[in-house]
Amino acid sequence: MGYDNFSTFHTSQDGAVLTVTFDCPPVNVQGIPMLDDLNRLAELLERDRGIKVVVFQSAHPEIWVCHADTHFLKDMSIDAVDRQDVKLLYLQEVLQRISEVPQATIAKIEGFARGGGHEFALACDMRFAARGKATFMQMEVAMGILPCGGGASRMARQVGLGRALEIILSAQDFDADQAEAYGTINKALDPDDIGPYVDALAKRIARFPAESIEACKRAAYASIDLPIQEALKEEAYQLFQATSRTPAIRRFAQADETGVQNSLENQRNWNQIVLAVQEIL
Amino acid sequence: MGYDNFSTFHTSQDGAVLTVTFDCPPVNVQGIPMLDDLNRLAELLERDRGIKVVVFQSAHPEIWVCHADTHFLKDMSIDAVDRQDVKLLYLQEVLQRISEVPQATIAKIEGFARGGGHEFALACDMRFAARGKATFMQMEVAMGILPCGGGASRMARQVGLGRALEIILSAQDFDADQAEAYGTINKALDPDDIGPYVDALAKRIARFPAESIEACKRAAYASIDLPIQEALKEEAYQLFQATSRTPAIRRFAQADETGVQNSLENQRNWNQIVLAVQEIL
Amino acid sequence: MGYDNFSTFHTSQDGAVLTVTFDCPPVNVQGIPMLDDLNRLAELLERDRGIKVVVFQSAHPEIWVCHADTHFLKDMSIDAVDRQDVKLLYLQEVLQRISEVPQATIAKIEGFARGGGHEFALACDMRFAARGKATFMQMEVAMGILPCGGGASRMARQVGLGRALEIILSAQDFDADQAEAYGTINKALDPDDIGPYVDALAKRIARFPAESIEACKRAAYASIDLPIQEALKEEAYQLFQATSRTPAIRRFAQADETGVQNSLENQRNWNQIVLAVQEIL
Repeated sequence: MGYDNFSTFHTSQDGAVLTVTFDCPPVNVQGIPMLDDLNRLAELLERDRGIKVVVFQSAHPEIWVCHADTHFLKDMSIDAVDRQDVKLLYLQEVLQRISEVPQATIAKIEGFARGGGHEFALACDMRFAARGKATFMQMEVAMGILPCGGGASRMARQVGLGRALEIILSAQDFDADQAEAYGTINKALDPDDIGPYVDALAKRIARFPAESIEACKRAAYASIDLPIQEALKEEAYQLFQATSRTPAIRRFAQADETGVQNSLENQRNWNQIVLAVQEIL
Repeated sequence: MGYDNFSTFHTSQDGAVLTVTFDCPPVNVQGIPMLDDLNRLAELLERDRGIKVVVFQSAHPEIWVCHADTHFLKDMSIDAVDRQDVKLLYLQEVLQRISEVPQATIAKIEGFARGGGHEFALACDMRFAARGKATFMQMEVAMGILPCGGGASRMARQVGLGRALEIILSAQDFDADQAEAYGTINKALDPDDIGPYVDALAKRIARFPAESIEACKRAAYASIDLPIQEALKEEAYQLFQATSRTPAIRRFAQADETGVQNSLENQRNWNQIVLAVQEIL
Repeated sequence: MGYDNFSTFHTSQDGAVLTVTFDCPPVNVQGIPMLDDLNRLAELLERDRGIKVVVFQSAHPEIWVCHADTHFLKDMSIDAVDRQDVKLLYLQEVLQRISEVPQATIAKIEGFARGGGHEFALACDMRFAARGKATFMQMEVAMGILPCGGGASRMARQVGLGRALEIILSAQDFDADQAEAYGTINKALDPDDIGPYVDALAKRIARFPAESIEACKRAAYASIDLPIQEALKEEAYQLFQATSRTPAIRRFAQADETGVQNSLENQRNWNQIVLAVQEIL
């Protein structure tokens, strides 16, 4: 599919897992070249059912993804606008597009993730961070603005409003354990464990059908934007989208024939059944 | 009120607490008979102000409530539908109806709760799980679908979006402590403690007026579906619904006469006052 | 600005931090005088860009803010109203107005915070509580009503729905550690630590521009009331509101000149940079 010729990261594919490694010295700055790269990456991913999981990591020993480029921040407009005239920033558009790719996205954070870098992590589906290496901060309030790469909008979708406000208003470094306790990341892991953990998770998800992964994402994101009755309708809609495109019915038929639900032994064994059933296409 | 003649569970009433014990060998499968039973249970509860709390438990030594029946899953439609034509599934409808009963509902989980079983737990107001016994999973993505008993819609209403996506996309067993850490359950408890804990909680809530329990539920659920100004209006609306039907004003009048708020000693004692005041009808 | 002549609290100003100390013996009851005071406080704060952070604490050794006054509760209407006719209660209006002040607000809780007192805490941006001193409860369900100072509406915006329902339905005391575990507060702190912790946080935030503090608050609160696309637009709107009124562009220009993003050494140092940059006006 041509996941190459990017200037700020390189990619490698292992089965249905695409690993994106940011490598943009000296600090992996989140500039226009990186946003252009991410935008093209999203465009490719939107049309690719061969890739099911994307892992974002960094080649830099201390930095995951840096804050937004001060080059373009210093040229921002200083004119207030009317609410009805406001347009999304390019940074917001690109990160929202990444958030909406049909693949499962995992941020594997082993360094600084501040400002726009942290906002990029929040635009991924899941986040794991290495103890002693990952450091987070939203510094925008101190500069005179607010997190405007979706950070002010996405933070409270991960943690309670009170903890979101503390992170956004305090402009203070916090580490992986604090991030886990507050809920901005899924889990803090020891530096030696994060690689195998994310690898196993990515490979597990990559065994499942691309279309059910997409259906899960669509319904989960919709659920926090909609009242429950509308969310349930979207869930039902996504179900039929999935069954029309996946081997679901054949898998349930086989599960029915082999009597999964008639056997306590089988019930004990679902962690393996979900893998074994992938042979039914 | 006739809480009998169910085929997949039996019930017992102790004061205003109804205990529903799933008992549908071999594995408490979530089939049409169970959904029919739950639908009839909800219908009875909707009209019953004598029952104030419902506890859901299982007679099975290893299984709380099993996933949805593969018999009907294998016959699902594989036709994609238009978004405007989508109808809720029977499973969604029944679990949403359970979610909306006026009683406080408690899932007391001492075994497997996977797929539709876990989604049923998420449709209850509160969830407690026994360490070493409870095991959770959403396996749908692996089968080719998504959690479609409200699970894709309700998960992020309990935990952050990132952790909801991990649970839904990884199709992996997780235990009571992990569930507590992520927030899908209220608390993990030792196997010997869960019985007394849930019993005490159920009996405590059951002492309070049925109409204020309902008002609390209505306002709390509405609050996550509505912007804050609309949520506050619903809260005020539920207040007047409650005061028109409960002894609230007489209780406040007595609290005022006895000077609760003039005495530090009384202020120290609210945990008991809330029980003592139940004598005022 | 005249932060004096309040009857239920006194205030002291240290730079851009206003400390509000409740002092209304015998129990800091949340009566009309306190609501009138809070309403006037909010009115003053709305027009004051000199105050950037407000800390709410108590002079009482055991009580932070008491529940609502039983004097006015006993006179509440007992007539049910139509949904379209419902008006917000004065208590709801005042706490919502406090929630919307442009300043960062911090509840520093070292005593009982039950009923309306707890709801007042939930209306603040952040909450910290002292172990062994803070005690929380929503007792309304036991009295026959529901938390109607925004508590039923705001609880699930802080914690998962299940834990919100347990707190609201159980009418039971819980302590600072439980509050931290459930997420109703940001952090539980030892009694000797809470003072210095809140002081340092308040002073840190108070160094940042008033207009970016306000923009952060507006966007974060809006984010949970709006679908993501609308939330992102509000975030962009607030960005231009902020840049038109703060030294943001000059700070980014200087950061660009001094090459923050070209130096790993600088990247390691953001916790200090955010303070140093405050000299650029």
